[in-house]
Amino acid sequence: MTVPTSPVSQPSYSFQCVVDSPGFQVVGGKGVYIDVEKDGQVHSGVLDGVTGAAVGALGWGNEEVQEIMANAAKEAVYSFAPIMGNKPSEELAKFYIDNSPKGAFSAALWVCSGSESNENALRIIRQYFLERNLPNKTKLISRELSYHGYTLGAQSISWNPKVLPFEPYLMNREKTNIKINSAYPYRLQKSGETEEAYSERLLKDLEDKILANDPDTIASVTVETLPGSTLGTCPPPKGYLPGIRKLCNKYDLIFHLDEVMCGTGRSNPNGKLNCWENYLADNEAPDIQTVGKTLGSGYVSIAGVLVGPKIVEAFTKGSNSIFGGNTYSSHAFNCSVALAIQKKILKEGLTENIFKMGNLMGKRLQDALLSYSNIVGDVRGIGGFWSLEFVKDRATKDVFDVATNVAPRFKQICFDNKLSVMALSGTEEGTTGDRALLAPSFIIDEAYVNELVEKIVKSVDQLTKELHAEGKF
Amino acid sequence: MTVPTSPVSQPSYSFQCVVDSPGFQVVGGKGVYIDVEKDGQVHSGVLDGVTGAAVGALGWGNEEVQEIMANAAKEAVYSFAPIMGNKPSEELAKFYIDNSPKGAFSAALWVCSGSESNENALRIIRQYFLERNLPNKTKLISRELSYHGYTLGAQSISWNPKVLPFEPYLMNREKTNIKINSAYPYRLQKSGETEEAYSERLLKDLEDKILANDPDTIASVTVETLPGSTLGTCPPPKGYLPGIRKLCNKYDLIFHLDEVMCGTGRSNPNGKLNCWENYLADNEAPDIQTVGKTLGSGYVSIAGVLVGPKIVEAFTKGSNSIFGGNTYSSHAFNCSVALAIQKKILKEGLTENIFKMGNLMGKRLQDALLSYSNIVGDVRGIGGFWSLEFVKDRATKDVFDVATNVAPRFKQICFDNKLSVMALSGTEEGTTGDRALLAPSFIIDEAYVNELVEKIVKSVDQLTKELHAEGKF
Repeated sequence: MTVPTSPVSQPSYSFQCVVDSPGFQVVGGKGVYIDVEKDGQVHSGVLDGVTGAAVGALGWGNEEVQEIMANAAKEAVYSFAPIMGNKPSEELAKFYIDNSPKGAFSAALWVCSGSESNENALRIIRQYFLERNLPNKTKLISRELSYHGYTLGAQSISWNPKVLPFEPYLMNREKTNIKINSAYPYRLQKSGETEEAYSERLLKDLEDKILANDPDTIASVTVETLPGSTLGTCPPPKGYLPGIRKLCNKYDLIFHLDEVMCGTGRSNPNGKLNCWENYLADNEAPDIQTVGKTLGSGYVSIAGVLVGPKIVEAFTKGSNSIFGGNTYSSHAFNCSVALAIQKKILKEGLTENIFKMGNLMGKRLQDALLSYSNIVGDVRGIGGFWSLEFVKDRATKDVFDVATNVAPRFKQICFDNKLSVMALSGTEEGTTGDRALLAPSFIIDEAYVNELVEKIVKSVDQLTKELHAEGKF
Repeated sequence: MTVPTSPVSQPSYSFQCVVDSPGFQVVGGKGVYIDVEKDGQVHSGVLDGVTGAAVGALGWGNEEVQEIMANAAKEAVYSFAPIMGNKPSEELAKFYIDNSPKGAFSAALWVCSGSESNENALRIIRQYFLERNLPNKTKLISRELSYHGYTLGAQSISWNPKVLPFEPYLMNREKTNIKINSAYPYRLQKSGETEEAYSERLLKDLEDKILANDPDTIASVTVETLPGSTLGTCPPPKGYLPGIRKLCNKYDLIFHLDEVMCGTGRSNPNGKLNCWENYLADNEAPDIQTVGKTLGSGYVSIAGVLVGPKIVEAFTKGSNSIFGGNTYSSHAFNCSVALAIQKKILKEGLTENIFKMGNLMGKRLQDALLSYSNIVGDVRGIGGFWSLEFVKDRATKDVFDVATNVAPRFKQICFDNKLSVMALSGTEEGTTGDRALLAPSFIIDEAYVNELVEKIVKSVDQLTKELHAEGKF
């Protein structure tokens, strides 16, 4: 149903996205469907394939959550956490720790966004080595083709073409930030190379970089457990994450996993929270983990940093204090709502559900899309987090020119077919192709999977046909 | 009343403030009073002198706001703003623009914290000059003894001793960040120098720095209209801010005012929003302004960036788009609650009230504290934002050693007298003394002022006596 509600040309006061127009606006949502207004027309019943940016776990307009928020509003009193704490932030920390493998984490800090969580992780890493009187351990190892946030510190440890214009304001890459290859089996695993051999090659490269840069000056290795917006949900090859854990132990580095997009129930095999439980044993837990997105499921703006016993011990043996903080860290209302949401997800078995239904969705997409000729080169992911990568030719994996605008066009075609996805452009130099990202809410069932797969296949076919007609491949 | 509620020793799961203990915890609040638990004892009825960190405008436990939040929870649907917007974020932007001097601002971006607002301001400044094809205009001028946030980009343009440990992760100070003196009349205005002459001297220094650093490579000047946590609410001397505005025009620099602490009604003379209206004519508005704190009054975690017509025009004439954004920028629920809070403040004349009552509080503190011998050297501020600065000797302005812990001790004595203040240590090199910060809620009346002044005077007398007895001055 498409209903006109206002004149086509509206002014925009929002300095975001397209500057001179309000563009697409969400005007309603219920469960897995959203209503979107564009140019004065409301498009209702759009299937939500990506819950904003892998944010929503409970779907939209959940009445129990609305009640949770109303109650939290009555109870919560703001406090400035660097001076005074509150109970909800303590309780949410205890909940996350209790629902992670035993001994993995000892404390948590709650902030307002994934960017803030990664900024705080870097501050914690720095203070950790100062507490141990190792001030020279400053260099941060992170990966090419990665994304850790929008603020300048988080952008510094990221890498993608959109970061480059801000280079003058980023950390000194030569002195402070060492880049290693991403684990990107689809393009970088050699033909004939086993998964294990690919991991070993990546780990050897990492160790070479560590040795070439003086381990006594290196602080940490930061990795997205399942890469999100820059690379598109490549599961790490076998042995890769355990190997990084071992190298971090060997050279006294902090192992930092970024689970802002992939964590907090989106892709956990045990009905719990962390994505790394797919790939690491309990005693191989990261030293720091950043989380966000599904933690507040879009209802409140919350993210966090989990820290392991090693870090807590260094602090308590040292200054036992953290100076300052964000104005809204440990925000009582946000923490209270997030805690109730997480308890609801656990109680209703929704993490288990999205792991099963998400994997079914992925399998069905693989079966459907890779069984005939079209522009999809790869379908990859795990649990509730999947991607399609587009190529001209499935055998050569040649990417489309960035100017062909495959990603934005795919997104628009999906939208015309009443499906919302995130679409991400390829890199200029062809190191990745265009991608589409899927991250549905945890409440999906088989009917959702069927509807989504049907709409994706239809949209892929349409774009394949268009690009063919244009002679683009 | 002091009620024991739990055993003294509690574990802490919160990685904030004191690491191994929950420390002070806010457990309740109503209006201008808060209840604080420490070591298992609840101290109720503590007068709130600083509303967290200059955050609260409406006092705590406001039932109308609780209802506002319950309603917003029912209506708001999350959207990922870089892809889709929403109505509440547009409406809040329009409200802020409409309640600022005509023509000052054209658009706004809503984020989750003051740090994020200043990070986004730096990104906007960078993109502004790229849109105009002036890629070499990169250098950011900001002030010594300043604070712009906790994230690494915001820390880079700040300066205070607590920033230094993070130096390896900050922007390159020599290449990118130029520091100028703060306007700090209490210590830096020379004896016999008029306010105007002091401003002229500061402006000459600024212009000399601009010329020495090649104006074609300079992007912006960032100033806190009324400095907050690092310097303590020094009103800018006459002619200072208009002079910066003129130099920004002369050398094609962005004039960025940080009003995260002092803005959004805390110190506005016209019953409206911006602090700069005390010091600048309507046609001298900043090009970018960052705001936060009282915008959501602690109930929701929201902050923002206002941009003027010059910036919007450069973008719309250029790419007309902003790539990416924070996951929770333009958060519909946060924007909706903030808009209702701001409308309530306006309707009830609370900005007018805090300007009048805050100035009364400041005057009474000056009259009371500076009329006899004690450790208070200066009482300064405007509207709802005031500071005390502590000295050994009012004539020489000699500061106490940092090791004397004057600020933390003053805070503790105030707390024992059932008053909550923020206390800030002096710098090691004595460029500032210890300070206490006052930023009450906008709902205060004369009875509040009387209670607060009485408690401050009592606490000052106690600490003066103690320090005397210890031979500290």
